[in-house]
Amino acid sequence: MDIEMIRAADKRLNGYVRRTPLLSSPFLDDIAGRRVLVKAECLQHTGSFKFRGGWSALSALPPEKRKAGVIAYSSGNHAQGVAIAADAHDAPCVIVMPSDAPAVKIQNTRDLGAEVVLYDRDNEDRDEIGARLAAERGLTLIKPFDEPMVIAGQGTCGLEIAKQADAARVTQADVLVCCGGGGLTSGIALALAGDAPGLKVRPCEPERFDDVARSLKSGRIESNNRASGSLCDAIITMRPGDLTFPIMQQHCASGIVVTEEECLRAMAHAYERLRIVIEPGGAAALAAALFHPAESEGDAVIAVATGGNVDKAVFIKALEMSQ
Amino acid sequence: MDIEMIRAADKRLNGYVRRTPLLSSPFLDDIAGRRVLVKAECLQHTGSFKFRGGWSALSALPPEKRKAGVIAYSSGNHAQGVAIAADAHDAPCVIVMPSDAPAVKIQNTRDLGAEVVLYDRDNEDRDEIGARLAAERGLTLIKPFDEPMVIAGQGTCGLEIAKQADAARVTQADVLVCCGGGGLTSGIALALAGDAPGLKVRPCEPERFDDVARSLKSGRIESNNRASGSLCDAIITMRPGDLTFPIMQQHCASGIVVTEEECLRAMAHAYERLRIVIEPGGAAALAAALFHPAESEGDAVIAVATGGNVDKAVFIKALEMSQ
Repeated sequence: MDIEMIRAADKRLNGYVRRTPLLSSPFLDDIAGRRVLVKAECLQHTGSFKFRGGWSALSALPPEKRKAGVIAYSSGNHAQGVAIAADAHDAPCVIVMPSDAPAVKIQNTRDLGAEVVLYDRDNEDRDEIGARLAAERGLTLIKPFDEPMVIAGQGTCGLEIAKQADAARVTQADVLVCCGGGGLTSGIALALAGDAPGLKVRPCEPERFDDVARSLKSGRIESNNRASGSLCDAIITMRPGDLTFPIMQQHCASGIVVTEEECLRAMAHAYERLRIVIEPGGAAALAAALFHPAESEGDAVIAVATGGNVDKAVFIKALEMSQ
Repeated sequence: MDIEMIRAADKRLNGYVRRTPLLSSPFLDDIAGRRVLVKAECLQHTGSFKFRGGWSALSALPPEKRKAGVIAYSSGNHAQGVAIAADAHDAPCVIVMPSDAPAVKIQNTRDLGAEVVLYDRDNEDRDEIGARLAAERGLTLIKPFDEPMVIAGQGTCGLEIAKQADAARVTQADVLVCCGGGGLTSGIALALAGDAPGLKVRPCEPERFDDVARSLKSGRIESNNRASGSLCDAIITMRPGDLTFPIMQQHCASGIVVTEEECLRAMAHAYERLRIVIEPGGAAALAAALFHPAESEGDAVIAVATGGNVDKAVFIKALEMSQ
């Protein structure tokens, strides 16, 4: 993996990806005690950064492989990103999803034209299911994070951050990224290492699912004890990837761990001050920026709001909690 | 008023205004039966397009007038736009607000450094109060819409729409604009008449407060029977302005009238499909696009989501209504 792969993905995405804005509010600056800039990837097509990786992977496939179709397993956002990219590339698409994923994500994926296969995430292994279906039907498996073309696609978000931070006159800052398997985190870290070396990526995770923070600390891949059971379902993975972890090790600073309640409170602040909708997992970085200010240094912090696909009941809970 | 005044305002705003994105979703296209592009002015600084007019007016004042200070009367969004612009220009700022404005808007205006004076909008005349305070303290009155520099500022939104529609390959479409006194509507109409003559502005208003639609129909300024009593408070005015009406007469097609319930449903769709927060008055144009498709023609429609400052209780009501 290198930054040239990200630049190549950026060319393939150009004209299709939404160049998402960097938002801010003096009210959020007051809470954090420094400038807070929010990269609003919840405004990306399908409501999360996963569109970037999905499009990058689909557009990089040889035509005959695209024609045979693709398969992906995902808690929802990767599914939607791959589904819409497959549809735009006229590729058949099968999505393997956990049966406890938010209903809205399952329905959206079907509505985007994909065939959805559900599995039990506590008792079944999605990798195994994905590999079997791929073999049976001749589909190309598009992994959610440990896949070079996916990492390259997510990295395009980092190229944008580098330009937008420069325009905002921010050259030294932590870049807080909501982190699951590390596809977005490692992609952004690679892009910034090349284009904005003063911007340092910090992975942000919910407590009890802080495999990346622990892995960065110990210097080897650590796993979580459980595969589900967090409101932050969008960024829950068992462990960082074999490809993503070495990149994070080389380019990221230590991780920040937040609580679910902090994520819900960050969602309410994003609603009120930025007028954007973010999901619990997509709020981990903003929660770190707002409620863990002592863990960062400098005059500014950049938080990536990675997604905005959240069931209404959870969003209402977040708003009511902070009234 | 001419487009050169809008281009001049755009130069003064450059580097300060947020160039808001044009959002879309295949799910919204399905509802409307045509492409729907949403200009997300709720993502503007202070959460509405009013920042543009406020900044335009403040930046156009001679330095000695700026130093003496400004005054504005507003249901909330104009107040915040003027307050933040005044603060950035080091100008003292008094805001006259109706006592029934959403609490969040009153508090935000105070937090932005302005002095807030409340009045009863059914029994007091805000123009009179504003004029008196301006005379007593030597302040410059910045009217919410019937003011050339304000119209020029709002018109910068139209310059952006012209460019963004062209990039999206939309050259013939209705541009639906949530309309109160007509500052934004006339500004966008002037800008598009020059830069994108195939885009036709249609004012959108809530029922019972459709003064602009009726005025365009009768050919003379018509008034509403009441000054308050709608969830769409942000776009409630008694009548179109003496400056804005002739511009709308010359450049706008007929108005579209929507119900409050349609605005709430449009808010829920914007939450779910675009991940943006819009207020009831800021949802009138999207409501017209989604629920009055027969009143427009063509393959695409552009709806301006004018603002996103909404009390949590109202937003929750909108989400629960459409569950």
